[in-house]
Amino acid sequence: MAKPLLQIACDHNNLPSALADIRAVGDVVDILEVGTILLLQEGDKAVKCFRALYPNKLVVADAKCADAGGTVAKNLASAGANFMTCICCATIPTMKAAAKEVESVQVELYGDWTFEQAQAWLDAGIDHTIYHQSRDALLAGQTWGQKDLDRVQKLIDMGFKVSVTGGLSVDTLDLFEGIDVYCFIAGRGMTAAADPCAAANAFQAKIAELWS
Amino acid sequence: MAKPLLQIACDHNNLPSALADIRAVGDVVDILEVGTILLLQEGDKAVKCFRALYPNKLVVADAKCADAGGTVAKNLASAGANFMTCICCATIPTMKAAAKEVESVQVELYGDWTFEQAQAWLDAGIDHTIYHQSRDALLAGQTWGQKDLDRVQKLIDMGFKVSVTGGLSVDTLDLFEGIDVYCFIAGRGMTAAADPCAAANAFQAKIAELWS
Repeated sequence: MAKPLLQIACDHNNLPSALADIRAVGDVVDILEVGTILLLQEGDKAVKCFRALYPNKLVVADAKCADAGGTVAKNLASAGANFMTCICCATIPTMKAAAKEVESVQVELYGDWTFEQAQAWLDAGIDHTIYHQSRDALLAGQTWGQKDLDRVQKLIDMGFKVSVTGGLSVDTLDLFEGIDVYCFIAGRGMTAAADPCAAANAFQAKIAELWS
Repeated sequence: MAKPLLQIACDHNNLPSALADIRAVGDVVDILEVGTILLLQEGDKAVKCFRALYPNKLVVADAKCADAGGTVAKNLASAGANFMTCICCATIPTMKAAAKEVESVQVELYGDWTFEQAQAWLDAGIDHTIYHQSRDALLAGQTWGQKDLDRVQKLIDMGFKVSVTGGLSVDTLDLFEGIDVYCFIAGRGMTAAADPCAAANAFQAKIAELWS
């Protein structure tokens, strides 16, 4: 079982504050994510800045693309993104069009989706999903449970790389022990810490401990 | 039955080309839309420019928001947007959080959605949907049919304001005669015309003719 990667999600409202956090954790994490909020505020400039600062890291543009997959993916790839997200209710043609332009399309699992749909994504060559606890759902009191873990495992068994995200802390990583997670995505779990770099190192140490 | 509004969707790859088209049709259309592609490329600057150029027009930010509805909506409203789109697979908490920050949340109907979900949106106070033919689906050969018109009518009967979009031309408006559409959204149906302003006027004339 490969050691899961660690991804910083930058859901900042502006580029300067995102860059400050990226500067703090960029050498520790494996993947840099331009979050949806940041992307909608700053546009592709945010992707270009992440790429310029960390030429050798993986960069994800969390566009949650629902349509015009080819154009959006081409634009984001040319700005420097390796990966791009599509929302799970995007059509297969949208996902396939996007997949032609970026290294990998990641399907964001939100709201209502089915394993039957997931199989259709696999059949279309889309093999990466992001299992996501909505921030708003978390705020409404929902949290990680056995049902989530079972669904993550089932997606992995189907053949997906699965990234997980939503209110993750170093302690919640224990829940995933023994599961072949591709990547843990944390935002404020790192950026809201007094010392974001130390928080990133704590995530990596915990991942190394659980997946050694 | 009120006369439907006309909305220009600017799915441009950059702000200058969008501004040129907005300049051509801005006085004719009722609503100016910063399309998803443009928003992801230019960020909230695109919303700010549309607002600055047309202080008295309705401006829509087509964010297709799937999460963090409150933050995204607050950002876009402060940039000058009246309306914001949420994707149909967003959770109810996301839509409600967004609805607190903008004048109206418009639910973009993509892929798999159900009338049961639509009722839940209504129950949550979200009463605007956008019935959308995916551009990628259109490219794959799908087009408007009776099934679409029936679903649009059913949404209206439920109590929704319904905007329709996707490959619309002046001629396709005939299909909607007698249906209480809130707004027709066209992009390249106007912007790709030799004379975008004449195309916008042709749309408005046809709407006036059919809904007089």
